[in-house]
Amino acid sequence: MPKEDKTSVVTRAMNEIIESVKKASDLLIPEQVEAIIETLMEARDKKILVVGAGRSGLVGKAFAMRLMHLGYQVYVTGETIAPILGPGDVVIAISGSGTTRLVVISSKIAKERREARIVAITSYPDSPLGRLADQVAVVVGRTKMARQEDYVSRQIVGEHEPLAPLGTQFEIATMVFLDGVIAELMHRLGKKEEDLKARHATIE
Amino acid sequence: MPKEDKTSVVTRAMNEIIESVKKASDLLIPEQVEAIIETLMEARDKKILVVGAGRSGLVGKAFAMRLMHLGYQVYVTGETIAPILGPGDVVIAISGSGTTRLVVISSKIAKERREARIVAITSYPDSPLGRLADQVAVVVGRTKMARQEDYVSRQIVGEHEPLAPLGTQFEIATMVFLDGVIAELMHRLGKKEEDLKARHATIE
Amino acid sequence: MPKEDKTSVVTRAMNEIIESVKKASDLLIPEQVEAIIETLMEARDKKILVVGAGRSGLVGKAFAMRLMHLGYQVYVTGETIAPILGPGDVVIAISGSGTTRLVVISSKIAKERREARIVAITSYPDSPLGRLADQVAVVVGRTKMARQEDYVSRQIVGEHEPLAPLGTQFEIATMVFLDGVIAELMHRLGKKEEDLKARHATIE
Amino acid sequence: MPKEDKTSVVTRAMNEIIESVKKASDLLIPEQVEAIIETLMEARDKKILVVGAGRSGLVGKAFAMRLMHLGYQVYVTGETIAPILGPGDVVIAISGSGTTRLVVISSKIAKERREARIVAITSYPDSPLGRLADQVAVVVGRTKMARQEDYVSRQIVGEHEPLAPLGTQFEIATMVFLDGVIAELMHRLGKKEEDLKARHATIE
Repeated sequence: MPKEDKTSVVTRAMNEIIESVKKASDLLIPEQVEAIIETLMEARDKKILVVGAGRSGLVGKAFAMRLMHLGYQVYVTGETIAPILGPGDVVIAISGSGTTRLVVISSKIAKERREARIVAITSYPDSPLGRLADQVAVVVGRTKMARQEDYVSRQIVGEHEPLAPLGTQFEIATMVFLDGVIAELMHRLGKKEEDLKARHATIE
Repeated sequence: MPKEDKTSVVTRAMNEIIESVKKASDLLIPEQVEAIIETLMEARDKKILVVGAGRSGLVGKAFAMRLMHLGYQVYVTGETIAPILGPGDVVIAISGSGTTRLVVISSKIAKERREARIVAITSYPDSPLGRLADQVAVVVGRTKMARQEDYVSRQIVGEHEPLAPLGTQFEIATMVFLDGVIAELMHRLGKKEEDLKARHATIE
Repeated sequence: MPKEDKTSVVTRAMNEIIESVKKASDLLIPEQVEAIIETLMEARDKKILVVGAGRSGLVGKAFAMRLMHLGYQVYVTGETIAPILGPGDVVIAISGSGTTRLVVISSKIAKERREARIVAITSYPDSPLGRLADQVAVVVGRTKMARQEDYVSRQIVGEHEPLAPLGTQFEIATMVFLDGVIAELMHRLGKKEEDLKARHATIE
Repeated sequence: MPKEDKTSVVTRAMNEIIESVKKASDLLIPEQVEAIIETLMEARDKKILVVGAGRSGLVGKAFAMRLMHLGYQVYVTGETIAPILGPGDVVIAISGSGTTRLVVISSKIAKERREARIVAITSYPDSPLGRLADQVAVVVGRTKMARQEDYVSRQIVGEHEPLAPLGTQFEIATMVFLDGVIAELMHRLGKKEEDLKARHATIE
């Protein structure tokens, strides 16, 4: 038996994740993607708040770091410094299932009390988060709420339980998607890698 | 001109990232992967500390969450609760360049004063981090230190600057790799998704 | 005019805070304090989760660090590693007003779904948090919800608006109170400063 | 034996802490305090970065929250969003001993590479942090490095080990001092509590 077989689950799981990201990329709806890019282009002198829980929250932080490198005034929920939002400011809310309580409540308050624009990144446009958002980008991917009978879930992994558990597929597909958004923003803003490096934290 | 072209940088950047993850997966060294799995299998009743800065630190936190779902006693540097390490405990240190000051210093202290085992995830086994580690898993991917003349860098993106800036490729390849490690650990420990769900935080 | 007068607001505000902490100390209810100490003494092999928002959350983290130094298995809400609570585990919930949404919801879920014991630190035992808690320690102090007509508020600062704004008095009084609890736990557990130092993080 | 005696260590420790804060307040050097206020008054359109480790870091975050309520552009080291500092920006570095590695290194880099102004809050003006800082505010208080033979330490607690362990006295004295600074800034800026409330985060 060849040596590679010993850790074959690692590479099989990696391939499965890669395939699910590819599928999520293929199933992106161009009008939704264009709308997000335009919202971010128009928000260059506005505040942006990224909201997410658990691993989706970490993906949101990774996106926030790059927006900061691009010169955006960006904040992350749950950290020490939180902004007061106002009309024209943007909330990027990330939840695969679209039901994460913290994300839904925060978005609702930001929208109703502060008139902020809510952008939802979710697999379920018809979820509580999707319905309250001003705009949605659907990123398919098996989420932690997925069931076998679930259409989104079946589309991605077929009939079997995937090797990578819970929301892994949605989380990584969203990270790759948001890094694609960063590349597009760099392109439209005429920014080069050197420009981002200049804003990279240098004292840690 | 078809509508899809408007956001073509998004999808081209996503494809580029997907290709780089695939390459990183192909170039994994099975013995290194097997050694990490074995270290983690043996550390089930030990403490595990995940160390990383910036976006690599976020990838480390995502891995830490899954280790926690698997029942591990795991910690993340920089948070309120940090453990005292001792012999047999494990540090997972993540740095694409292998030179990130915080990561190198923390690993050095953990190794010398606490006799912890250092596992480095890096593109550069010959870096300061790689050299002080007890074991290394090389995850290729253009890092924020990459230069055109750089072998690792050229192997991944060819001769042009990639669309996704700085360490994006390393960060995402490492996230996918570590989720592959989680799948392998689930397999060896006989854990199902249901078991992880039971340990998922329920009060946020 | 003497030079000291130039920064007289600093020292007057400091004195005002010191007086409010003294008053909070005088008004502690010994049975409540004893009950908290006993709950913590009995929870030495249980999980403890500290919950708070904003500056009260920071005070909670400072308490969590010392509990960790004492050897407790303690967690802080909102960080990467969150435990699954169960019967016998303890939630320390800190909210001056007793109405902070995040704190009330988290405590409610931990109590109802997980049968954890809820200990509230608040100025208002009759608040939503106070009423759902299994035990309360009242720490008086003007909170960010205080009104002039408010009994707790008047008791502390009299009829004028204090120099230190919002919840400052409650936050600092609670920090001093919880450090008093640590001193008592050290006493009962026979721990010396040296024992705590041995558990102090050494790799940051 | 009266019931109150049962938890007498709690109240004795609280009194000890209150006395140490009072002493720290009495021993503040007015010129140093005035210099900090002036630095902050002049930095209203500059960036402020607060740096601290462990419980001193939490005290720094509590200060950063109030500076944000006052309208400052303030950041905290170790969080997702970190600024690039430049000439005229201010680092508030908090370390009782003045030796905390992370704090000293960060301050050094911010000063040398970024020409930021370093303000140290420490018990030891002659420490590595104190010596590299552009200005210092001495806040006496037993720190975690204190020894019986230590002058600062003896001044505060006399000859016996205090009930509250390690750096508790410095941490709380610094928190009260920095809240005094906030009160002074409110006074000079003509801000009322209502103004701060308007900037208080409302979506958590």
